[in-house]
Amino acid sequence: MATRVVFSKEQKTKNAVLIVGLPGIGLVGKICVDYFIKELKPAKVGKVFSDTFPPSVHTRDGVVELISDDWFLLDDSAQPVYFLAGPVQPNLDFRVGSNAEHYEFANEIATTAKRLGIQRIITLAGINVGDARLEKEPGVIIAATSSKLIPEFTKLGGSADKKEGLISGAAGLILGLALEQGIEGVCLMGETSTRLVYGDPAAAKRVLEMLTKKFGWKVNLDQITAEAKNIQDAFKQLNQQMQDPEGEGEETAPENGLSYVQ
Amino acid sequence: MATRVVFSKEQKTKNAVLIVGLPGIGLVGKICVDYFIKELKPAKVGKVFSDTFPPSVHTRDGVVELISDDWFLLDDSAQPVYFLAGPVQPNLDFRVGSNAEHYEFANEIATTAKRLGIQRIITLAGINVGDARLEKEPGVIIAATSSKLIPEFTKLGGSADKKEGLISGAAGLILGLALEQGIEGVCLMGETSTRLVYGDPAAAKRVLEMLTKKFGWKVNLDQITAEAKNIQDAFKQLNQQMQDPEGEGEETAPENGLSYVQ
Amino acid sequence: MATRVVFSKEQKTKNAVLIVGLPGIGLVGKICVDYFIKELKPAKVGKVFSDTFPPSVHTRDGVVELISDDWFLLDDSAQPVYFLAGPVQPNLDFRVGSNAEHYEFANEIATTAKRLGIQRIITLAGINVGDARLEKEPGVIIAATSSKLIPEFTKLGGSADKKEGLISGAAGLILGLALEQGIEGVCLMGETSTRLVYGDPAAAKRVLEMLTKKFGWKVNLDQITAEAKNIQDAFKQLNQQMQDPEGEGEETAPENGLSYVQ
Amino acid sequence: MATRVVFSKEQKTKNAVLIVGLPGIGLVGKICVDYFIKELKPAKVGKVFSDTFPPSVHTRDGVVELISDDWFLLDDSAQPVYFLAGPVQPNLDFRVGSNAEHYEFANEIATTAKRLGIQRIITLAGINVGDARLEKEPGVIIAATSSKLIPEFTKLGGSADKKEGLISGAAGLILGLALEQGIEGVCLMGETSTRLVYGDPAAAKRVLEMLTKKFGWKVNLDQITAEAKNIQDAFKQLNQQMQDPEGEGEETAPENGLSYVQ
Repeated sequence: MATRVVFSKEQKTKNAVLIVGLPGIGLVGKICVDYFIKELKPAKVGKVFSDTFPPSVHTRDGVVELISDDWFLLDDSAQPVYFLAGPVQPNLDFRVGSNAEHYEFANEIATTAKRLGIQRIITLAGINVGDARLEKEPGVIIAATSSKLIPEFTKLGGSADKKEGLISGAAGLILGLALEQGIEGVCLMGETSTRLVYGDPAAAKRVLEMLTKKFGWKVNLDQITAEAKNIQDAFKQLNQQMQDPEGEGEETAPENGLSYVQ
Repeated sequence: MATRVVFSKEQKTKNAVLIVGLPGIGLVGKICVDYFIKELKPAKVGKVFSDTFPPSVHTRDGVVELISDDWFLLDDSAQPVYFLAGPVQPNLDFRVGSNAEHYEFANEIATTAKRLGIQRIITLAGINVGDARLEKEPGVIIAATSSKLIPEFTKLGGSADKKEGLISGAAGLILGLALEQGIEGVCLMGETSTRLVYGDPAAAKRVLEMLTKKFGWKVNLDQITAEAKNIQDAFKQLNQQMQDPEGEGEETAPENGLSYVQ
Repeated sequence: MATRVVFSKEQKTKNAVLIVGLPGIGLVGKICVDYFIKELKPAKVGKVFSDTFPPSVHTRDGVVELISDDWFLLDDSAQPVYFLAGPVQPNLDFRVGSNAEHYEFANEIATTAKRLGIQRIITLAGINVGDARLEKEPGVIIAATSSKLIPEFTKLGGSADKKEGLISGAAGLILGLALEQGIEGVCLMGETSTRLVYGDPAAAKRVLEMLTKKFGWKVNLDQITAEAKNIQDAFKQLNQQMQDPEGEGEETAPENGLSYVQ
Repeated sequence: MATRVVFSKEQKTKNAVLIVGLPGIGLVGKICVDYFIKELKPAKVGKVFSDTFPPSVHTRDGVVELISDDWFLLDDSAQPVYFLAGPVQPNLDFRVGSNAEHYEFANEIATTAKRLGIQRIITLAGINVGDARLEKEPGVIIAATSSKLIPEFTKLGGSADKKEGLISGAAGLILGLALEQGIEGVCLMGETSTRLVYGDPAAAKRVLEMLTKKFGWKVNLDQITAEAKNIQDAFKQLNQQMQDPEGEGEETAPENGLSYVQ
């Protein structure tokens, strides 16, 4: 069956945008899109099934469902916005999946986007800055399918991705393959660390703020602000202790900070 | 060739049920269905071949056969009952197979079920409760493709699967993919432990009793009762020794109990 | 491209036999068929290419060739005999290939056999008897697609494969899949050890003798007899030393024997 | 999508040659073709995309692109010459990819070559001579799809590949599969070591010189000559030190030399 996108009814939209937030480094994209869905309450309009997903079904209160990602549609403004969210994307552990699975999955998303009249795709991701993440507030790095698109987002506070680089997984491949179909794309990457396996709300918050500003959405940021503050406070403690490893820090041992990293 | 289902003659059945018991945790589903086949003597009506199975042939008294699972039909009552039994399902060790193999196999079973006029699929499985298995009699957990189906089985002594969970392999995927074809499904999961690699007859017996009651079958339970008693007695000894590790238990050392676990 | 069989010209044969000797345990099948090809000089009539083979080309005196197995035809008697020989079959290391590759390869051979008018396939293989191999002369174990075929070969000195067993790889799957196309099959397994990675000429010789008798071929056995004697002598020395490890065996230390095992 | 070759406009060429230099042992082929592209400035005419490539996109100054290899055309002489260059070929680590991927990729290149009117393919590669690489200037080994082609290149300073051997990956398979389509082929292998993971410019230079002579190109060799000298000087130092390990070599310790090997 490969990857299959199913809509409850075929959507007719024009000039739409798709925002993609699937699991990845620091769960930045996923935290961000899940937060928008909770706050903006777009309608759930479709599902993505794929035989690249784990060979399991999900149960919720005993009810069985195939594992899927979900399409949502926020259609109350001039420009319809789709969100693609969910618990899975093809596995980047090379021992589990094949390269072809990633291309097939991303291409199915790109082809669906074309069919839905989507003209721009914004993928949200984390970018690994390693232990530097512990030392500073995360920034947002911008890459796009055309250099003209980059200033739109740098003026909102992002930095252009200057060096040569690679964007791995769906966040990159969806853009590359959608461009082949004439769809422009942007990737917003919150600076984070691969060690933050339980998620990096502070990096997610930065991306969230940028999109909120861009789309003029009214989003209550209290919860993510609190979560972001917790992780930044924890890193501050961790840094102090690292700089003063033999000092009197014992009583304020940042157990909390360590619980974020792996 | 992928997965291929072959019937000796095309079956014509209406309103049928399929009970699936392939190898899995604690061999619960397999023990259970194999027992029904031995006792109820349904007719062998078909085979499943698959290139997801081990690349070997089976020999019995020197006679070579492709590895297969088998379809049986019990057609002597108002409602025909199919059984799917056998030595293999696609391998859950991610290093051996791909996710796609599991979906393809399960989908072929679901599609065949549709063709045979099957309206309900009951998959039998084990659910890992870890070392808690050693401390109590196993229960049966119920999951289903609709919440309406669950009470049918909880009133026979099962418990609804309350928490979020995953059902891995054919027992889950067959239900999820068959639902897409309009077939309702239930998964009965005997509580067991992944360490019981030689099988857990006590967990299997609980599932067996539930189905016997459900279908009003006359099944001689003597053999499975004896096997279940053996494993439960062994666990009892094991527990006593664990609670009294330095006591006088040496002479009754539960070597038998240890032989069940890995 | 999967697996592709190419003949220099399409062969027209009736009531033919195919003898398959590809690499496997103890290289028994390969040594045996390669020996027949050297002695009986059948015509090379076709090739098997496959994308399950290593992604390399072979060079001989600087000339590049795709890796292939080869079909030979001995057509000078009442019953035409094909040989399938060569350096490769799909890899049984599960980390390298998929189960599907084995089924696809074997099925292509079976389908080709059908097209060529082949009515019987004899696959040659080794069967692992572990260190027991060091202690006795190897026997030949017989498995077949029908119990009626077994006595034809036990009366030539083989033993029926009594226990339940598995035959892995092409030697088994070709028989299982060819039977689906109405072709009968026999597997002759020389007793050997997986440790004999450089080949077991003594086990191969036993299989060779059985086929020579069966087909009434005139084959000069001098070379294989010498090689078989060497390995058996080496094992004899090894055994004597094992039984007398502290004795005066030092001067006759079976360095030769050890060189065969891994 | 498998492997897909896309030209900006369909090329019409006759009697053309294709020179392939993709990453491999010692990066010999890649260094060589990249150097020709820099010096001869052929036109970029096409791209190769493949789902056997890493599941990532490349960013350059923040602009996203699918990973691709590139086709170039040098059409200013009697005989058009294509170059195939780029950062990737299917991965030879067996844990990452399948054998089939290599055959599919190479076959797509061969089929494209046929369509473009290419009559000869020259693949450039490294051949591992192990630590012998440190002790002598690298030679160039010649293999070809026909023994008649070999003297054309040995008279330019290469040596025929005498022994039996294997050429792994695209450099070999493209030749083997193109021959099936009637295209002749040659592989030029610069002697190098698998330990030279950062590239072996001295081996590349030898191959480069041979092709420059063959095609009568005017290529400024200054840069590669300097790089080749550096690596050869480093190896000389390394060898002196190895021969005089306890001598007074300390002050001239070939740190430079060690930086080349892994």
